[in-house]
Amino acid sequence: MSKGAGGALLDMLAVRRTPGRPIYRQIFAGIRERILRGELAVGTRLPSTRTLARELSVSRHTVMQAFEQLQAEGLISSQVGDGAYVLDGGAGHGFAAAPDKPSEAGPDIAPRQVALSSRGARLAGSGLARRPELAQRAFYPGLPALDLFPRAVWRRLSNRHLAASGTGLYGYGDVAGLPALRAALADYLQVARGMTVAADDVVVLSSTWQALDIALRLAGDTGDRAWLENPGPEQVHAVVRAAGMSPVSVPTDADGLVVAEGEKRAADARLAIVNPSHQFSTGGVMSLARREALLAWARRSQALVVENDYECEFRYDDRPLTPLHALDGGQGVLYLGTFSNILGPGLRLAYAVVPPGLRTAFLAAKQVVSGHTALFNQAVLADFIGEGYLVSHIRRLRDAYGERRRALMQALTAQLGSRATLHATGRGTSLILELYDGQAAAISRAAAAQGVAVKPLDAYYQAGADLNALVLGYAAVTEAEVPRAVARLKAAFERS
Amino acid sequence: MSKGAGGALLDMLAVRRTPGRPIYRQIFAGIRERILRGELAVGTRLPSTRTLARELSVSRHTVMQAFEQLQAEGLISSQVGDGAYVLDGGAGHGFAAAPDKPSEAGPDIAPRQVALSSRGARLAGSGLARRPELAQRAFYPGLPALDLFPRAVWRRLSNRHLAASGTGLYGYGDVAGLPALRAALADYLQVARGMTVAADDVVVLSSTWQALDIALRLAGDTGDRAWLENPGPEQVHAVVRAAGMSPVSVPTDADGLVVAEGEKRAADARLAIVNPSHQFSTGGVMSLARREALLAWARRSQALVVENDYECEFRYDDRPLTPLHALDGGQGVLYLGTFSNILGPGLRLAYAVVPPGLRTAFLAAKQVVSGHTALFNQAVLADFIGEGYLVSHIRRLRDAYGERRRALMQALTAQLGSRATLHATGRGTSLILELYDGQAAAISRAAAAQGVAVKPLDAYYQAGADLNALVLGYAAVTEAEVPRAVARLKAAFERS
Repeated sequence: MSKGAGGALLDMLAVRRTPGRPIYRQIFAGIRERILRGELAVGTRLPSTRTLARELSVSRHTVMQAFEQLQAEGLISSQVGDGAYVLDGGAGHGFAAAPDKPSEAGPDIAPRQVALSSRGARLAGSGLARRPELAQRAFYPGLPALDLFPRAVWRRLSNRHLAASGTGLYGYGDVAGLPALRAALADYLQVARGMTVAADDVVVLSSTWQALDIALRLAGDTGDRAWLENPGPEQVHAVVRAAGMSPVSVPTDADGLVVAEGEKRAADARLAIVNPSHQFSTGGVMSLARREALLAWARRSQALVVENDYECEFRYDDRPLTPLHALDGGQGVLYLGTFSNILGPGLRLAYAVVPPGLRTAFLAAKQVVSGHTALFNQAVLADFIGEGYLVSHIRRLRDAYGERRRALMQALTAQLGSRATLHATGRGTSLILELYDGQAAAISRAAAAQGVAVKPLDAYYQAGADLNALVLGYAAVTEAEVPRAVARLKAAFERS
Repeated sequence: MSKGAGGALLDMLAVRRTPGRPIYRQIFAGIRERILRGELAVGTRLPSTRTLARELSVSRHTVMQAFEQLQAEGLISSQVGDGAYVLDGGAGHGFAAAPDKPSEAGPDIAPRQVALSSRGARLAGSGLARRPELAQRAFYPGLPALDLFPRAVWRRLSNRHLAASGTGLYGYGDVAGLPALRAALADYLQVARGMTVAADDVVVLSSTWQALDIALRLAGDTGDRAWLENPGPEQVHAVVRAAGMSPVSVPTDADGLVVAEGEKRAADARLAIVNPSHQFSTGGVMSLARREALLAWARRSQALVVENDYECEFRYDDRPLTPLHALDGGQGVLYLGTFSNILGPGLRLAYAVVPPGLRTAFLAAKQVVSGHTALFNQAVLADFIGEGYLVSHIRRLRDAYGERRRALMQALTAQLGSRATLHATGRGTSLILELYDGQAAAISRAAAAQGVAVKPLDAYYQAGADLNALVLGYAAVTEAEVPRAVARLKAAFERS
């Protein structure tokens, strides 16, 4: 080798004694980089291990480890008594000559784009919003009361399973969910929702998003249509678009989804995604006539009804209505529930009650997209439900939400009563504030700057509803916090 | 009302005092069912609440609760002083007349099938196998050593977070993963795999299946092709088929994937899914020349290389090779790792190192298909890695697996040495047993009857490889268990 190459190599090999970063790996990585960049040409003889060890002040054994690794990678040939030579592994295979040679790409060079498929572009471009920082939790709709998380009970039940001697919770689980949890959920749904459900009908999932993604892929092809309630959460539109399908907005009135209008707009839709026990914004419930019309359409057209029974637990004046699932005998309705708004979204636990005719397909699809759901929290939740904590926790939430709602209504009336009217419904966890003057979008922006998240009601409507109102979620805002948060909202009114 | 209708109603209303099943719900459900079946005709007057209360021996308040609920459902009209009448909510809306009237569908009637989309049928029909029961864990390939799960440390770290006062782990998390875990993984990959990875490059997932599903949808459309190694795990073929794509088997030789053959068969493939540091069955590694050829093809055709670096941790004679990701500068390689075979699949924790040009799309897709990953175990794992437990746990596994492998080799040689040759490689967690006589498929079946899971090597090959050999995983079988499990396998040899 030329003196120059060896000198350059030594200059480059800056060895640092960093814990967890073995010296031999540093030497190996340094030489490898030079070879791959073509800076050490094929046939170059490397300095001897003895020389390198002395110059770098490391043991010869360390250098030999690095050389062994270089040899294993096919970058050098190294034979006892002969020294080590650079092989044609680097530049010789077109690596260095590639137009977008990666080792030259510094952080200032734009990353190479990976080509997306058509469906990939749709999936990536759905526009599903990421959740806001918790700093803005007042009054972001849909955030649960994390301050009421049943910490002590959860810890005790967790420790029961952490201390158990079995290995079951660390191994492979049933893709349908932990049997104990499925049984507990079936019992719970029977009592709380009047549904006739067996443990076998229940599939545990990590979120309702996962259930929707599976349902859309199973029931719809690219270009197929799905009915969605208008108004309704924009996220559901995003998920439908992400699946390559067309969301069809079906209007709702005081009786819920106008099924006849859905049939007029898209009788051939493959799915309808609805929340009959909690119509968004109107706060109404879908009437029995409409529920039957929806089921009749679904039966005629072999479409799947997805009943996303979100927030069915939170009713203050009356009791929840019978789910579509129960009306239909569970034959053509995929019923979805979640613990995100009861315990917290961090747990990632939701469930579906799957019609018998869809069960095999649903489980096969879930096996593909994720396999079984994480086991530990399933076991804790099964105990939590089975030992009665869920029912009392929901009661506690319902009481607290009732109080938070009252506190919010009082504060809004006191501070903003002259500027807006309040529309409170007997369910859910949000209120609607209809503005006399000002502009909802502008106030929403000004409120964000004040650290308060209020969404314009328009955002829940497809095709400009021209409603000058704001949606305020109150579940995550304690009574003590309400007055200050409303004061900040008032400031936003003044600055918008 | 006629006396008869009231009598029939009373006959039907069997009320039982079951804890958790309120009486009023039982009365409500019973009457609802009769109305929906059309057995109580429109206009029928129900017995008075007083009469029903007396006949059923319940309080009048209970009956009134049931009636309120029936009224809320739109099933009856009920006015003070007038009594309650059945509305045309049931039979009047075509419910009872529907050909597949669900309330008539007993358990002996075949469930109504839900129509699947084309892609749904592919997704459901991929044939991805469910995992076997743990009873058959000897010698099912790919099962981890759950008996070595670091229970005490995990419990201690879990309690640290269970006792913490913050609510962060119960709320919404970053879809990319907990920042502390992403940073810990980046450090780990740098040290253990020589990769240049920042925390921002890492995305936490619930399994490598989830990563594969997202990658396939992002990079490939229906009908597109993907390269897979042959031999290789059948599950990967199933996942590719489930995504509506065509798996193209590319042969491997002693140098790994024969890239030129892949280009001949499907130069236009959109992805290649490979494990270069651990070629299945041959136990070889992909040579540098082949790795560079693969990357060059991927660059030319803008294809995505998915590097599923499964079991890279388990090498007994040498060190793992540089990942494709590092060779490529991380530009076009999606690198996947999992904790399923290090800690246990029950945790559902895996990760991807995502090329910068794919990151936005990958996170948007993950938001759609699942949202963020469950937070609690992410926090525990971040500590586990950051405090050095992962490195020592892997060392412990490596030692144990080395011993289990030796024990298995000894037992096989002693008990089956005259019937088969052993092919052990210096990595992974399985051995290959090449049979002198007998038939691998028949022995595999006979072994299953003996409670031993051995897979024919053929199962890993596309298009009949005609190899008479069995694959034996040893990670989950302790040294003490080995001799008896091998004796059962020997019995299977004799009975096949």
